[in-house]
Amino acid sequence: MSEEADLTQEERRHEERSRKHKAVVDARIAAAKVDKGLVLVLTGNGKGKSSSAFGMVARSLGYGRTAAVFQFIKSKEDVGERAFLARQPGVSWENCGEGFTWETQNRRRDIAMAQAGWEKAKLALADPEVSLVVLDELTYLINYRYLSLDEVLPPIRDRPPMQHVVITGRAAHDELIALADTVSTIRDEKHAFRAGVRAQIGIDL
Amino acid sequence: MSEEADLTQEERRHEERSRKHKAVVDARIAAAKVDKGLVLVLTGNGKGKSSSAFGMVARSLGYGRTAAVFQFIKSKEDVGERAFLARQPGVSWENCGEGFTWETQNRRRDIAMAQAGWEKAKLALADPEVSLVVLDELTYLINYRYLSLDEVLPPIRDRPPMQHVVITGRAAHDELIALADTVSTIRDEKHAFRAGVRAQIGIDL
Repeated sequence: MSEEADLTQEERRHEERSRKHKAVVDARIAAAKVDKGLVLVLTGNGKGKSSSAFGMVARSLGYGRTAAVFQFIKSKEDVGERAFLARQPGVSWENCGEGFTWETQNRRRDIAMAQAGWEKAKLALADPEVSLVVLDELTYLINYRYLSLDEVLPPIRDRPPMQHVVITGRAAHDELIALADTVSTIRDEKHAFRAGVRAQIGIDL
Repeated sequence: MSEEADLTQEERRHEERSRKHKAVVDARIAAAKVDKGLVLVLTGNGKGKSSSAFGMVARSLGYGRTAAVFQFIKSKEDVGERAFLARQPGVSWENCGEGFTWETQNRRRDIAMAQAGWEKAKLALADPEVSLVVLDELTYLINYRYLSLDEVLPPIRDRPPMQHVVITGRAAHDELIALADTVSTIRDEKHAFRAGVRAQIGIDL
């Protein structure tokens, strides 16, 4: 008796259910035919927003594609992701910040850095050779009014049609969410920090 | 007149608020003194769970650390993250699946692959030389009863104390959440797929 003929009743039911489910999923997949550059927004107060953006950089590199990363809050010294990804062929990396506003305590200087960073980001957003643009912690620059929506939205909207953009940060503005193709809100259910664990190398840094 | 002396009233208020906020944040950071290997669970139905795990692999590599990745659903062909990260020094990578259950339609075979994958994952979870273990889509194996909690929880709980574990997948079991140090639930607010866009290279694949 073959293995196939030897299925239990439960296994047979599972096979039948799976076949039906597959038909539904396949139909949905067949209906999705469009290829386009996406705007993804990763927001919310939970852990995983920036790391998800960097995972997409890794994915892109798997296809030999290029990525331009702009970190609008973090300074150069902070970051493991920079140490590894910035040295990869096809990746450009700019740190356009000096820490959060309560660290720098100088609004004028923060605004100047944000504006200078955004000028560089605009060049990437106009460059069809760049497959993926990461705008890490961009939401804060809008929420703190370091950059206006009128400055931020048009270069994203008018970018090359196949270029992907990933935007991270808490409390994404409604206009960013409206512009996005995909939005994930990452909710903080539990965080080691509240149990007295400091930021861990390779996880948080 | 120096630049500092030339602050507007709003800038001065900002500086004052920032100073107070910094005191609060600094006190919280000072209170978090513990270093330990973390269990992170990234769950929910939104985009960004697996990519976040791979971003943490990239971060770890920035410090010359090692990572072992187990993909319990995806087969070898699917993945850009594998193409890039698996070839990095210090990374081991196992694909222990052949697609979702409705794809394979063979429960017995899915269980056998899950069990074989878990045997390999247990070796990584017992190895203090591995800094980070990624258990991608592990939640489904528990939810489909391919693996029991009695098989899964003890090796995670008893791992080397400084080893980090990242678990991804929808609908994480309560016992996994209880075991975790950090849990993020990623909510799907909006997804390009529902607007007819298929999975995009470098973003979804």
